[in-house]
Amino acid sequence: MSSSALSKFSTILPPDRILSRPVELAAYESDGLTAFHTRPIAIVVPETTDEVIAIVRLCHELKLPFVARGSGTSLSGGSLPIAEGIVIALNRLNRIVRLDPAQRIVVVQPGVINTQVTVAAAPHGLHYAPDPSSQSICTIGGNVAFNSGGAHCLKYGMTSNHVLGIKAVLATGEVVEWGRGSRERIGPDWCGLFVGNEGLFGIALEITLQLLPRAECFHTVLAGYRTLEQAGDAVSAVIASGLLPGAIEIMDALALEAAKAAVHAEYPPGCEAVLIVELEGPREVVAIERERLDEILQASQPVGMRPARDADERMAIWKGRKSAFSAVGRLSPDFIVQDGVVPRCRLGEALRRIAEMSRETGIRVANVFHAGDGNLHPLILFDGREQGALQRAEALAGRILRMCVEMGGSITGEHGVGVEKRDFLGDMFSADEIDCMQRLRAAFDPLGIANPGKMFPGKEAPALSHVGLHPLEKAGVISRE
Amino acid sequence: MSSSALSKFSTILPPDRILSRPVELAAYESDGLTAFHTRPIAIVVPETTDEVIAIVRLCHELKLPFVARGSGTSLSGGSLPIAEGIVIALNRLNRIVRLDPAQRIVVVQPGVINTQVTVAAAPHGLHYAPDPSSQSICTIGGNVAFNSGGAHCLKYGMTSNHVLGIKAVLATGEVVEWGRGSRERIGPDWCGLFVGNEGLFGIALEITLQLLPRAECFHTVLAGYRTLEQAGDAVSAVIASGLLPGAIEIMDALALEAAKAAVHAEYPPGCEAVLIVELEGPREVVAIERERLDEILQASQPVGMRPARDADERMAIWKGRKSAFSAVGRLSPDFIVQDGVVPRCRLGEALRRIAEMSRETGIRVANVFHAGDGNLHPLILFDGREQGALQRAEALAGRILRMCVEMGGSITGEHGVGVEKRDFLGDMFSADEIDCMQRLRAAFDPLGIANPGKMFPGKEAPALSHVGLHPLEKAGVISRE
Repeated sequence: MSSSALSKFSTILPPDRILSRPVELAAYESDGLTAFHTRPIAIVVPETTDEVIAIVRLCHELKLPFVARGSGTSLSGGSLPIAEGIVIALNRLNRIVRLDPAQRIVVVQPGVINTQVTVAAAPHGLHYAPDPSSQSICTIGGNVAFNSGGAHCLKYGMTSNHVLGIKAVLATGEVVEWGRGSRERIGPDWCGLFVGNEGLFGIALEITLQLLPRAECFHTVLAGYRTLEQAGDAVSAVIASGLLPGAIEIMDALALEAAKAAVHAEYPPGCEAVLIVELEGPREVVAIERERLDEILQASQPVGMRPARDADERMAIWKGRKSAFSAVGRLSPDFIVQDGVVPRCRLGEALRRIAEMSRETGIRVANVFHAGDGNLHPLILFDGREQGALQRAEALAGRILRMCVEMGGSITGEHGVGVEKRDFLGDMFSADEIDCMQRLRAAFDPLGIANPGKMFPGKEAPALSHVGLHPLEKAGVISRE
Repeated sequence: MSSSALSKFSTILPPDRILSRPVELAAYESDGLTAFHTRPIAIVVPETTDEVIAIVRLCHELKLPFVARGSGTSLSGGSLPIAEGIVIALNRLNRIVRLDPAQRIVVVQPGVINTQVTVAAAPHGLHYAPDPSSQSICTIGGNVAFNSGGAHCLKYGMTSNHVLGIKAVLATGEVVEWGRGSRERIGPDWCGLFVGNEGLFGIALEITLQLLPRAECFHTVLAGYRTLEQAGDAVSAVIASGLLPGAIEIMDALALEAAKAAVHAEYPPGCEAVLIVELEGPREVVAIERERLDEILQASQPVGMRPARDADERMAIWKGRKSAFSAVGRLSPDFIVQDGVVPRCRLGEALRRIAEMSRETGIRVANVFHAGDGNLHPLILFDGREQGALQRAEALAGRILRMCVEMGGSITGEHGVGVEKRDFLGDMFSADEIDCMQRLRAAFDPLGIANPGKMFPGKEAPALSHVGLHPLEKAGVISRE
């Protein structure tokens, strides 16, 4: 950015909240998708919604690309900077604006951490349901941008099912407010449209979330199986029974190994896959459902079954599950977390095919996933120091995605398209469909300055189009200056 | 329409499916909002999705406005014809394309009647949840266009919560397909955006709906109260208890009188308001919840309480409730069904204020509504033969709407904006917001030919702009030629 452009930002923010020294820029050049790096020209750090609005209006005036960033935990490169743009860091907009226990709503700023919402709601017996694995660090703004899911989304739905209203500054600088804390709506779902926009429409300034009563009672059971398929069949049996657990998760042998090493999780001896099922609700209801679940799981021939006897044992089960992603780091210097969906009645088939691909390519794949809704998370292990290893891992990740599409599933369950999957959009949507999406995007952002280069195939941001040495640079995906 | 334009349609359809004689046009000149009439230039009756696509493409080429119509039950004038446009009647696209009980989805054409979906699903123990009062005649295409609700939407949500995928022809003639029968989605909620578009984006050709297991057991109880407020307080108590009934409905004295006269419904003597609460779920769960509900209702001091002892008694309770709207016709030659939302914790206050307005203006108002979600349906009674009576009723309806907005609610809960409420859109949304909506609409329909004159304030269709004798014509709302 020219110093004159920088100086315009200094009319909005004090100098210590405009970061442009190399060491400062370096801290923001990547996100949860660590393979990609782009250095922005500056990071601006607003502390109020008015400052965010002023910054976006200035970007609009200067035609300057921007990406809003919370904790940078995106696994699809959604918060990767644009090389000729700025990062708008929203972490200081972390205020819970209003909590209304009677109406069961909370209004938060985008930089509020996911778990902080539940912390604030807990004294009223309420909680915020969507629980991405990164919930202790990821922000609600990011959850909204990517329509985040989580283990308990089986029962409660994704972020979009919990957002009742959004006040946002569009990329045009206009400030809009959609949804008013009520489920009833007027015309198309304008508020729902904004959720999942991946930062391409503008920036959410205040988000109204619904809170749910905390379940009176949980019953969490862990069952070990000799094969992954048996675990998958048990999932089908639970779903077919009509039970609606809060969560149904599966971890395979490699993931179990990682969790054991990382957090000393314990699993039934001799099992190659673990199923976690959690019932929740009023005490009497859980008691009845628990009997049904026990029958179903007993019939599924587990090698071992272990219900959590108290809150500590429940937390231990979840700790093993939620740490599995990062724990896999102990098994391999690098890994790609893939995110795809298959119809849940074809889960067994999908897992078989992934195992075949793994054998065929000699690339280890760990599976930790939301089995109840068919949302796979294959972790593809590789060693980035080996020549071509990243590319081979990427190729396998792509094959898995195409399998998901072919089976009638989706290229993303909850991580979003970002930069990682933009070239797969055409596998899911026709040219007319993508064209219509682009027109809709242009209605929010006619200049294409809000997080360009994400979601849509092809190159958009000028800085993403240059040719470098790295093969991913050649593909126009990353840039390192 | 010039005969040359008509002749172009005859390349798509046989002559007996292009209706343009006055007697034919007259049958389509109004809808459920009977106060408004507009005569279209022709009605075309496609029988296949390919014919619909060809018709829309021809309209696009001719810049000819069109409105898609199912059973014409819209209560906001959403299917009111455009005077210089055509009606595309979709009743013959009434095929259930595919029903997959294992995946619990059904793919239907837009002309399928709401209840027919449940009829088709019932042999598999499944049902389609959204149940507008007009469900025995209204079509899924209309339900999608207006995001219809119904009594059981308290527990199960609106139509949008049950639409998993839409294949549609946009007003541009492009054919798009969004959502693939999976809850997981990619980017913004494109499919959800289409639901509730009020016919302004294009025409749904195939709709994928989720089916739910039919509840194993129902417990329906009718409680009579001495005052409407007591009934409202009972609703608050039920909601506060954490119970989530399938439906919570209220009928006031005038509505009870109408239901008694029309379907010989019986209510506890001496009651001025009736509350209907329906629990549903697995037998054991309902048994437990029923005890809780009984306690709560007993504490709310009803003058009488009557649980349905069998399926017939349950149906009798619902027959009284669902016939109430049309039954009010027995009390008054004309009435306006209003549709607004207030926060459900302010229900008592809203009802008090409506009663005050009724006393003040001397206009009778009957109340039948979805109490559980604060969705009011005041029925404003008038005699259209009296000079100025319609206008006074309209004015009262408007005051009630503005009260809803002021209380933090909404101008529509489930009937949509249509022509009826388009001038209230500005009470809910800012100029920037409406401008952004218009840009989004233009992304689907750059020529403004899909159901123009609906939803957005001001005049759009040329034929809606002429000045006639009727005051509503003067306002540009209706036209009679």
